[in-house]
Amino acid sequence: MSLRDLESLGLKTSGRSVYILDQTKLPHEEAWLDATRPKDMIAAIRALKVRGAPLIGVAAALSLGYWAQGNGSEASIREAAQALRAARPTAVNLMGAIDRMMAAIPLGSKALLQTAYEIFDEDVRLCRRMGEEGAGLISDGDRILTHCNTGGLATAGIGTALGVIRAAHEQGKRIHVFVDETRPLLQGARLTAWELRKLGIPYTLLCDNMAASLMSEGRVQKVIVGSDRIARNGDFANKIGTYALAIVAHHHRVPFYVAAPQTTVDPGCPSGREIPIEQRGPSEVARDWAPKDSAVYNPAFDVTPAWMVTGFIGCVLPRP
Amino acid sequence: MSLRDLESLGLKTSGRSVYILDQTKLPHEEAWLDATRPKDMIAAIRALKVRGAPLIGVAAALSLGYWAQGNGSEASIREAAQALRAARPTAVNLMGAIDRMMAAIPLGSKALLQTAYEIFDEDVRLCRRMGEEGAGLISDGDRILTHCNTGGLATAGIGTALGVIRAAHEQGKRIHVFVDETRPLLQGARLTAWELRKLGIPYTLLCDNMAASLMSEGRVQKVIVGSDRIARNGDFANKIGTYALAIVAHHHRVPFYVAAPQTTVDPGCPSGREIPIEQRGPSEVARDWAPKDSAVYNPAFDVTPAWMVTGFIGCVLPRP
Repeated sequence: MSLRDLESLGLKTSGRSVYILDQTKLPHEEAWLDATRPKDMIAAIRALKVRGAPLIGVAAALSLGYWAQGNGSEASIREAAQALRAARPTAVNLMGAIDRMMAAIPLGSKALLQTAYEIFDEDVRLCRRMGEEGAGLISDGDRILTHCNTGGLATAGIGTALGVIRAAHEQGKRIHVFVDETRPLLQGARLTAWELRKLGIPYTLLCDNMAASLMSEGRVQKVIVGSDRIARNGDFANKIGTYALAIVAHHHRVPFYVAAPQTTVDPGCPSGREIPIEQRGPSEVARDWAPKDSAVYNPAFDVTPAWMVTGFIGCVLPRP
Repeated sequence: MSLRDLESLGLKTSGRSVYILDQTKLPHEEAWLDATRPKDMIAAIRALKVRGAPLIGVAAALSLGYWAQGNGSEASIREAAQALRAARPTAVNLMGAIDRMMAAIPLGSKALLQTAYEIFDEDVRLCRRMGEEGAGLISDGDRILTHCNTGGLATAGIGTALGVIRAAHEQGKRIHVFVDETRPLLQGARLTAWELRKLGIPYTLLCDNMAASLMSEGRVQKVIVGSDRIARNGDFANKIGTYALAIVAHHHRVPFYVAAPQTTVDPGCPSGREIPIEQRGPSEVARDWAPKDSAVYNPAFDVTPAWMVTGFIGCVLPRP
């Protein structure tokens, strides 16, 4: 089959190569990196140069599919697939995408490429449908709070939670977005703010610890977040700070929605207790301002129990 | 009366001058600034070079007392006092201290100096007593979470919440402190971590949005925070993020204490609704990482309702 030139906000293919937009350099610089080789894609995933549960699944599949064209034995492709699959432990989309790729390895390199394209196209389609479904829940005049980045930089399509917001905006609903900055890596302040500005959707930035104060003033009608893995019982993992946000939303009776494609649901995972949480290094938290060698607690994700979720958008949970 | 050379962690007098340690430069640089002139002290308070509800009251009183020695008419001293009193709107200690100074203005410059010294000495004494009282609530092995900075840099003495922790440590109790970094100005990461290291008390730094996750793991036995103003009904203002912390502590049934000297209680303020909340500029939140000209929500404080407080340490509220 012939190679296709794909393009999304944070991922593109051109000729024989897969490129990712280096998200660590946003919003000040838009630098595209060649991440065709699986080892380069793994490094980019680990360093969060490419991130977002759906997008890393798509990006890893494309890397494997492109690299396999003319490269390596079935054994070496399988080895690369395993390494890609292990690049980040919490988001299940990556594992699901690579499992589909691995099933295609025996069918040859054309089937691998075909599968990677299917994974890309499916994510675009799932985002669009999720956006339309979720936009129906948004009222004209809503002020919506979100956490981390869940837009075009987190998926191959319009996004999950931010895709819902975008779809509501495109329907002509007047909405305002409150953007949690999302410490430690500031995906809200750096990436979501950048996307919203590009889309022309008005937003206000705040520190994560200010959301409760804003809600106490009655200024938030809905919270919408994404997810990195949803367990069978509806407990879900998402960027650190999501659990605290769910608690303060619940305290203020603010509806709390999770937007995620079906690929984020892990039917093999019974509950939140079984979701592995990636612990990251101290430098992301301590940066240059804390005393050197301070001990740091830095989980990349937390788990929110299902009962705190008002509704799941874009996916269906298995029946209990 | 003769001038005394006072010294605390963040404030000292020497000869005819009042110096403050520039807290915006900590932990990397220890720079002392001459803030004897009220206009310099006001600038230092506004820029948070000197901060902490009790300390700014003490520092403002000393500035006025020292500057009044041989300077200015009663009218100009009164004008300087009014300007100092208005330097920050939320913390009531500043207003209380300046009101005491203003009552002494008609008695002459010696009485002014005497009053300033009394305010300093009283704060040292109140901190010490609060520490002893609060340490009785701490158990050997406790892991205590705190927010912002409430130690020797926030008072003339050993501190409020951090003074309690220090007193428990000095009694030989083995404790571990979890330090909220305290966005946007990072008083936890920069100042509390620096003080704890000096004191030899083990600590772990975390982002504010990680406290809920830590509590869900059962790793926090108590939360202790300070306050900038306590209303008659027990509602209290403190550094932004305190209210969110109270909600997540309540959700996890973690006891939540407020440590504050009597000078933080404002009997003239009926409830939290009447506490003015200082709004600060966007650059503290947006810094260099968000898109330029992003709208920002940046209240310096929030209000926690009285019912969420397990106990007040160091102060007595008026009877209802």
